[in-house]
Amino acid sequence: MPAAIGEHHLYPAADLRSFAARAFQAVGVPADQADTIAKLMTDIDLRGADGHGIFRLPQYIRRIRAGGINVSPNIRVVRETAAAALVDGDNCVGHLAVEKAARLAIDKAETSGVAWVGTRNSNHAGAASVYAMMALERDMIGIYSAVGSANHLPPWGGVDMLLSTNPIAVAIPAREEPAVVLDMATTVAAFGKIKTAALRGESIPEGWMIDRDGNPLTDPTRAEEGFLLPIGGYKGYGLAMVLGLLAGTLNGAALGRDVVDFNKDDATATNTGQFVLAIDVKVFADVDTFKRDVDRIVREMRSSERLPGIDRIRVPGEGSAATFVERSRDGIPIPPDLLRVLQSLAEDLAVPGLG
Amino acid sequence: MPAAIGEHHLYPAADLRSFAARAFQAVGVPADQADTIAKLMTDIDLRGADGHGIFRLPQYIRRIRAGGINVSPNIRVVRETAAAALVDGDNCVGHLAVEKAARLAIDKAETSGVAWVGTRNSNHAGAASVYAMMALERDMIGIYSAVGSANHLPPWGGVDMLLSTNPIAVAIPAREEPAVVLDMATTVAAFGKIKTAALRGESIPEGWMIDRDGNPLTDPTRAEEGFLLPIGGYKGYGLAMVLGLLAGTLNGAALGRDVVDFNKDDATATNTGQFVLAIDVKVFADVDTFKRDVDRIVREMRSSERLPGIDRIRVPGEGSAATFVERSRDGIPIPPDLLRVLQSLAEDLAVPGLG
Repeated sequence: MPAAIGEHHLYPAADLRSFAARAFQAVGVPADQADTIAKLMTDIDLRGADGHGIFRLPQYIRRIRAGGINVSPNIRVVRETAAAALVDGDNCVGHLAVEKAARLAIDKAETSGVAWVGTRNSNHAGAASVYAMMALERDMIGIYSAVGSANHLPPWGGVDMLLSTNPIAVAIPAREEPAVVLDMATTVAAFGKIKTAALRGESIPEGWMIDRDGNPLTDPTRAEEGFLLPIGGYKGYGLAMVLGLLAGTLNGAALGRDVVDFNKDDATATNTGQFVLAIDVKVFADVDTFKRDVDRIVREMRSSERLPGIDRIRVPGEGSAATFVERSRDGIPIPPDLLRVLQSLAEDLAVPGLG
Repeated sequence: MPAAIGEHHLYPAADLRSFAARAFQAVGVPADQADTIAKLMTDIDLRGADGHGIFRLPQYIRRIRAGGINVSPNIRVVRETAAAALVDGDNCVGHLAVEKAARLAIDKAETSGVAWVGTRNSNHAGAASVYAMMALERDMIGIYSAVGSANHLPPWGGVDMLLSTNPIAVAIPAREEPAVVLDMATTVAAFGKIKTAALRGESIPEGWMIDRDGNPLTDPTRAEEGFLLPIGGYKGYGLAMVLGLLAGTLNGAALGRDVVDFNKDDATATNTGQFVLAIDVKVFADVDTFKRDVDRIVREMRSSERLPGIDRIRVPGEGSAATFVERSRDGIPIPPDLLRVLQSLAEDLAVPGLG
């Protein structure tokens, strides 16, 4: 048995990665692609975005088995210029399409300075931050956005759920400080937080959701009767909409009524769209000077005088950077419920489980 | 005398433009540059962003006279690749640097597909939307952001005002519908709204500002004792910070403690930074198909069932598009206080006033 914190067993990332890769191979994903997906999922867990890593494995496998994802995709660049491209994922596991888009954006930015690559016929790809962060290895800034895989947000003033929590991630390299990594949904709370509160029997704060009469909804077990609120009211609605047009509509991918709820429908192709933008720092600045400047700004923020009762000021990305260090050393905590689900998946697929 | 609504005199855009151009020429701005600035300022008023158009003229003129802006700038491209560039504004009126950056981004996107141009040593440039919208004429998508010209926002949990309301604008072309144009500050309310409420003797809603103890601040005359709140709490703080790093730090422009409050200091060079990103739609999609798709999404949003008490659902940009039509036809309303200030400015500069 692995180490444990409380009831959570701790697994080394390598064990989760090889398990996820076995599971994908068992349903027909070629070994190299299975490993790419498994690595990205494990990176997500290492950074603490637990709702988007190995937690999603059973759903991805179920979707593949239901025919909702193509395990022999022809992922190809269908349009291309010096600084832009469009990748058609051929209904692949989303991680593969976005990983290809991110690599292509980074390579193109190396010669053009900046590059933007969109995807279509992709699928849910996990946490936004991992794709934005791929640019950091090359001293680039990465920006990623996506059309979320289920609509939980109406237009401002409306009740028809036509938008998702369309996230945006921005990763900016620093020198001694952790990279600045913003990874946010355009709603006050992500839908996963509502589900977690419901599982724990907790109520949710006013301001996260309203019901169809416009009243605050604080009982998360009633989530289906209401919808999420966007950040800043009409501003967050506008942001979700323009990100959806950029990540979805521009690429010929789904937005609005065309979005398939991937939690409720395993079989219909989602035609998910995403984009990755890479910006090569050295075009604009001396790289070392820029990183020192980012360090300085990070430290200015952190050393601000604080409001009463606030113990420290955080900078986007520092929490997940600390989690990465801790989990790389100690392992990734897997809650008992999830462990049971993963072990049952292993039996079902007749592959070795987590042990 | 011109036409009037209530106490507001209505002036044709052309009259405001020629007046602003005369004022800039009177303080040494060359005629062609004066006209470029005046046109952009008037475009801002035509679209209803009243706090960023001709309203700012006295401040810009005062700043030029105080030596805080260079009227004989050498605005030049200091770094450049196929899809990226950095424009040094040489402390020019901000409109000139950003207009050059936007034109360059659009021209580069025509060949590269996508292009990003940053500015440094620029100044306040008015409303974000006009620069994002320049891309629309070429069937491109435009994105603009800037480091705001005064810090009103602390990091989340802090009280030191280290960030501005750093705005973002995104303009996306449509076919029969008005273009989708988002233009938002990363704070719940822009500082201009607080000043307007104070002038009118109104209180401001909870959620716009807090005081240094973290309590809601609803008396706008006490604005100096508190600070603006970011949209979505820590999310808006994160967004303001990354936009500041992209528009400011990446370009070698000011962010954080280096930001000069241009409302309080007319003489110190601000080293303002901005960026414009242009995305050529035809790289990703057939332009007409894309515009029809944008129309469809706009109509989906607008035709959503509504919350009780909501008369209609708006889409970002439709309000300012309607204002543009109305003001192009009827003129731009100038409140009596502003008119007096502008007439006094005309006398002071010994140029013909608005008449």
